[in-house]
Amino acid sequence: MTLTNENQPYVLVNTNNHVLWLSMNRPKERNPLSSAMLRALYGRIREASENDDIRVIVITGEGGVFSAGHDLKEMSGRKEHCEPDNEKRVKAVLDDCTQLMMSLIKSPKAIIACVQGTASAAGCQLVSMCDLAVTQDQAKFCAPGVNIGTFCTTPLVGIGRNMHRKHAMEIALTGDMFSAEDAMRFGLVNKVVKIEDLKNETEKLANKIAQKSAVGIHSGKLAFYQQIEESIEDAYTSASQAMLQAMLSDECEEGVSAFFDKRAPQWQGL
Amino acid sequence: MTLTNENQPYVLVNTNNHVLWLSMNRPKERNPLSSAMLRALYGRIREASENDDIRVIVITGEGGVFSAGHDLKEMSGRKEHCEPDNEKRVKAVLDDCTQLMMSLIKSPKAIIACVQGTASAAGCQLVSMCDLAVTQDQAKFCAPGVNIGTFCTTPLVGIGRNMHRKHAMEIALTGDMFSAEDAMRFGLVNKVVKIEDLKNETEKLANKIAQKSAVGIHSGKLAFYQQIEESIEDAYTSASQAMLQAMLSDECEEGVSAFFDKRAPQWQGL
Amino acid sequence: MTLTNENQPYVLVNTNNHVLWLSMNRPKERNPLSSAMLRALYGRIREASENDDIRVIVITGEGGVFSAGHDLKEMSGRKEHCEPDNEKRVKAVLDDCTQLMMSLIKSPKAIIACVQGTASAAGCQLVSMCDLAVTQDQAKFCAPGVNIGTFCTTPLVGIGRNMHRKHAMEIALTGDMFSAEDAMRFGLVNKVVKIEDLKNETEKLANKIAQKSAVGIHSGKLAFYQQIEESIEDAYTSASQAMLQAMLSDECEEGVSAFFDKRAPQWQGL
Repeated sequence: MTLTNENQPYVLVNTNNHVLWLSMNRPKERNPLSSAMLRALYGRIREASENDDIRVIVITGEGGVFSAGHDLKEMSGRKEHCEPDNEKRVKAVLDDCTQLMMSLIKSPKAIIACVQGTASAAGCQLVSMCDLAVTQDQAKFCAPGVNIGTFCTTPLVGIGRNMHRKHAMEIALTGDMFSAEDAMRFGLVNKVVKIEDLKNETEKLANKIAQKSAVGIHSGKLAFYQQIEESIEDAYTSASQAMLQAMLSDECEEGVSAFFDKRAPQWQGL
Repeated sequence: MTLTNENQPYVLVNTNNHVLWLSMNRPKERNPLSSAMLRALYGRIREASENDDIRVIVITGEGGVFSAGHDLKEMSGRKEHCEPDNEKRVKAVLDDCTQLMMSLIKSPKAIIACVQGTASAAGCQLVSMCDLAVTQDQAKFCAPGVNIGTFCTTPLVGIGRNMHRKHAMEIALTGDMFSAEDAMRFGLVNKVVKIEDLKNETEKLANKIAQKSAVGIHSGKLAFYQQIEESIEDAYTSASQAMLQAMLSDECEEGVSAFFDKRAPQWQGL
Repeated sequence: MTLTNENQPYVLVNTNNHVLWLSMNRPKERNPLSSAMLRALYGRIREASENDDIRVIVITGEGGVFSAGHDLKEMSGRKEHCEPDNEKRVKAVLDDCTQLMMSLIKSPKAIIACVQGTASAAGCQLVSMCDLAVTQDQAKFCAPGVNIGTFCTTPLVGIGRNMHRKHAMEIALTGDMFSAEDAMRFGLVNKVVKIEDLKNETEKLANKIAQKSAVGIHSGKLAFYQQIEESIEDAYTSASQAMLQAMLSDECEEGVSAFFDKRAPQWQGL
């Protein structure tokens, strides 16, 4: 069995009940976020973002590790056929990474990380940039850039917006693995379950959100990531504008009618 | 007994030991934040903000529910005598809501939410915008806009500034009720007590703060909400300016003198 | 024994294994952050920041109290030989304070607060501005400005960036002491240990970080405090630029080579 055959797709794709499951598929190499993997994920996120049939996206990985972070061989020019110019090569990976990460919060779909095993460096960043995260009780997380003469500087953009500053600095300055329990305490994940329940619990959460109004989520998610960076006065202005449009939508008219009629609403796309 | 008689005031008012208790008074309708309720609360907050006899404001609700959020009948035009133009009507409610919410952090008084039962949607936003919150162990909170085809977009302006992003998104994407324990873990409330102690514990906290320097709180509260949105360099500049004025005030001279004389200070207004 | 002899240095200095220990040395007065103390600490931080032999800085205090905050006698003009102009005098202390506090996050070194006893007001601010903090289980923290007719307005610049808003306001509005356990829950400290383990545990953490790449930490720490204040788009731009330079450095080349050679890296300066 050649799990890591180069002809295998980087990302396995499965849609079930309007939930798109994206599974990183380089388990033997511990699902590194190489340029190829970053672009494959980005392509799937972008496609799904325009697909009305998809309401929720789950990002997970094949094998025992969620993601080991960037591909150090690629980053350091030790990989065959890679760009010889160091600056060009590293910059390309970082640009691919930012493109994927930003696409997660720009996507109108709810996105859930389903984290088994270990999420390291950019792998941990990937968890931080999803809207929600479910993990197993034995999972490990880390931002170990200090161990290779650098620092998890770009991962901390996402991680640092998930938790308090001292926690982010603790992670990055020590490079230590931290537990699912700590990830929960810090604010990096929403739920910790046993490994045998990880897929089911994630599915349950995804299915629940998929049954909600996708129109409402589209509007509300984008408004959230916009307003949270604004001054509170500006935030109320922009959020009220989004709320006004949402309240005037056909979807909301249906939702409110269903509420008063004491019946289940019929959402667009379901 | 007609608790919901239209001639009843929207907000019950009681002042005790320099603490103003404002209690939303539409218990049968679960204290909806209709335009009338929002304006009644706003009027009371504005008045109290200019009243030197009031040092602390408590916001609570009559009956078993803190607040169910906006009045859906009003929002959706299903109420008698309401503005027929959808956009005008919804915009008016949202503007009234923002006006109240912003008045809470602009008020020079310490403001405490005292939350019994349930705080939903804009009711949960109201909790988030108070300086402090005390609740009961059986209280429930939620941001259930997704269930009526929209999203709790404006509530998340306040809620999203009380807790980490993944927690805010969890609340808003699922629409689920969450417990007082979770509200405590997220950072939405400061204290959870038994229902029979709720009023007393809130009173104790309010009375303690009412015995502090109102002059100091006025200056410090406004400076806090300003600087927390600035860059840290700018924050030190604006906070130092406020601190300098406070240190040069008669109130501080009295406080420091009392400290060195080992006597209780005589605050202005007490 | 005259621990508080005026000829004693304000700050005791000890370097061990590339870790600089700075210990505030006015134990009898509870290590007040007078202008003299603030400047002594600032001088040491600035020196150390340019000293390649120093990789980590620990800030602690002699005696049973970490720091009682500003020197009220100095602040209020009750001290001998102090500046008679109230505004000039207070402004000078606040400026010295801001200068020290900002130097902590501008320093390229990892900085750890080692907190015994009590950290009050500006003493609590000092803890908040360090990258990391270790404390003892019986330690107490507070922001008690309201008790002297003012408010811990400048301390809240640092404290308010360590924890959620309701927790910061709870601390500042009540002025109450809070426990190490609460400090941990709020996000103000990273680790709580028994008093007899405080020095050892802090040393262990400091030594661990001192064995990491100082070049990586320099770049990463400065980039963190810059990006965390930017919009997420700008944050990715500035963090990616810092990450690119770090990945192209000799230090990273050594780190990655060591990783692939399965040997310990030889960091610059070790």
